[in-house]
Amino acid sequence: MTKADWRRTIRLAESGEGAGWAVEIIDQTKLPFVFEIATLTHMDEAAHAISSMQVRGAPLIGVTAAYGMALAMNRDSSGAAIEAAYDELLSTRPTAVNLKWALDRMKAALLPIGHNARRAEAYRLAGEMAEEDAALCSAIGDHGLTLLQEIAARKGGAPVQVLTHCNAGALATIDWGTATAPIYKAQAMGLPVHVWVDETRPRNQGASLTAWELGEHAVPHTVIADNAGGHLMQHGQVDLCIVGSDRTTAAGDVCNKIGTYLKALAAKDNDVPFYVALPSSTIDWAIEDGLADIPIEERAAEEVSEMSGLTADGAVTRVRVMPPASPAANPAFDVTPARLVTGLITERGIAKASKAGLAEVFPEKAKRP
Amino acid sequence: MTKADWRRTIRLAESGEGAGWAVEIIDQTKLPFVFEIATLTHMDEAAHAISSMQVRGAPLIGVTAAYGMALAMNRDSSGAAIEAAYDELLSTRPTAVNLKWALDRMKAALLPIGHNARRAEAYRLAGEMAEEDAALCSAIGDHGLTLLQEIAARKGGAPVQVLTHCNAGALATIDWGTATAPIYKAQAMGLPVHVWVDETRPRNQGASLTAWELGEHAVPHTVIADNAGGHLMQHGQVDLCIVGSDRTTAAGDVCNKIGTYLKALAAKDNDVPFYVALPSSTIDWAIEDGLADIPIEERAAEEVSEMSGLTADGAVTRVRVMPPASPAANPAFDVTPARLVTGLITERGIAKASKAGLAEVFPEKAKRP
Repeated sequence: MTKADWRRTIRLAESGEGAGWAVEIIDQTKLPFVFEIATLTHMDEAAHAISSMQVRGAPLIGVTAAYGMALAMNRDSSGAAIEAAYDELLSTRPTAVNLKWALDRMKAALLPIGHNARRAEAYRLAGEMAEEDAALCSAIGDHGLTLLQEIAARKGGAPVQVLTHCNAGALATIDWGTATAPIYKAQAMGLPVHVWVDETRPRNQGASLTAWELGEHAVPHTVIADNAGGHLMQHGQVDLCIVGSDRTTAAGDVCNKIGTYLKALAAKDNDVPFYVALPSSTIDWAIEDGLADIPIEERAAEEVSEMSGLTADGAVTRVRVMPPASPAANPAFDVTPARLVTGLITERGIAKASKAGLAEVFPEKAKRP
Repeated sequence: MTKADWRRTIRLAESGEGAGWAVEIIDQTKLPFVFEIATLTHMDEAAHAISSMQVRGAPLIGVTAAYGMALAMNRDSSGAAIEAAYDELLSTRPTAVNLKWALDRMKAALLPIGHNARRAEAYRLAGEMAEEDAALCSAIGDHGLTLLQEIAARKGGAPVQVLTHCNAGALATIDWGTATAPIYKAQAMGLPVHVWVDETRPRNQGASLTAWELGEHAVPHTVIADNAGGHLMQHGQVDLCIVGSDRTTAAGDVCNKIGTYLKALAAKDNDVPFYVALPSSTIDWAIEDGLADIPIEERAAEEVSEMSGLTADGAVTRVRVMPPASPAANPAFDVTPARLVTGLITERGIAKASKAGLAEVFPEKAKRP
């Protein structure tokens, strides 16, 4: 894998010793300062890649786990090996929904078939899951693109100004990303677009990952402090917001990276459309009230009190950015109520952020009233 | 000056060579990692302290300039020396309103009197201006305290939860601060209070200055990413917000550190009272529409793309936190419309954030309709 074709975040090695079976990933812990491909040759290495966040983003975690199972089958295709790999891979990030979904699917496909067929089937199915995710994101991009085209049509050649938060980008998926997919589609067809990238403290996924991948695609963008978006919207500098979602309720409440709610409030206050791009797999059809029913992960204080960056002599260094005696709190997500969401861009089309709106697009999933 | 009595941010040396005439300040560029007193013995050093931001905050800048004039008089009390000091000190931070106000007042007092009286008068007047500012902030604290007492009365001993943004603290003034004054008053009378401190990217004045000074006063506090405040308000964890103001219109619009507007929106959405503490000197009686009439300073991109912090081996180091090729934008302030402000805590009392509300408290200042 080279930097030029990085957009696939995971794939099989094409040459060398591991050609056709070793798994290549971008080591995202080194971004944005170092672009480095890690090659996974054992299931243990796939587990480590997930737990150490060399790969992150629910879709990519799921596919990496699937390839981890394939790497296990490469060594030992016994039923015991399937169970052991399942347990080890599942324990890497206990809260990621896609992880269990992907592993369940692999196990259900592999256990019933003969030992000799398992290796090939594992690789085939992992590849299929990667293709599926890329196709989902591409469809999200096509639907979201229509929104950008509408805005572009009335701007007379001036760039469509998009604001995004966190990284719901290609790096979080296999290809295209979710919130970024409409942007990449616009870029591909020559529609002028500029992206305001919230740095997204405390982990800085915007400044370190979204800015990096937009730069690699030559999409014009500007990084801003999370504090700045409201001011830009007050001054007409944002045409629409597009963010991702970690979990969406059946009534359209959106749980996403902390700070999303503040941008949705500013968008509402300034009549800026606020869209959420998501594959329908993030919709939790069992719940409706996001504020009451979605538990919010509290992460380590060190994510607030320390930051990593590049020193003048080129070393990546971690520094403390607040007084040693002061405590910090770090809720990782917040919930944006459906009333603040203009629409949900899904792989099937754009749904209103409401029970009725989602039921219209996904009639087979919605609960009967 | 010792750390124990640091709350006065500027004063005359009490012992040693400079006793009674040299000026001591806290070098705020070294906080929160190093507490260091700088001693100013020449007017040039006072000018440097302002321009290098060893002192910052409009009230403190003004008083430092006044003491700079006194240091000039200590060497040469000629009219030419007054003019030279005036010009040099005024050029340090061209946009700070208090700077010119303080220097005009010094010049007007010194020029008409005899050479021999100028040195003593300069020190007396600088001291008077420091006392005046401390008294203003103390009065703001007394008025704001009533709000905290009301909340405490219905919380049955649980701490009053205050959220603040940036540093409108003692470090920005001579003593007490503005937004922090009610908190210190509450702490002094044993009222339980806990402060959520927005880190306030990009310059981190919350995490580095507010957290530090609250810690020095043993006020319980927790630093949060700027993204987190809305989530806390959604979950009933904030009783009121108090922030400062850099400029307030006659109609009650508040220009303050970037990101203030987002917190005001979240407060409104969750019925959390949102107060602004300010000396009436920050009210610009000539303008009403903050969004239209207040120009917003755009600061250096490096404030977003780089951060200073303490490495594991104790050195203060600057690191880059985003891709080298990505640009950044850095608007320094935003405007919170009066409709989102519950009240303005001034030295005369709490005013409604409206033309009528301000005219009621400051009848001699308000324009006749």
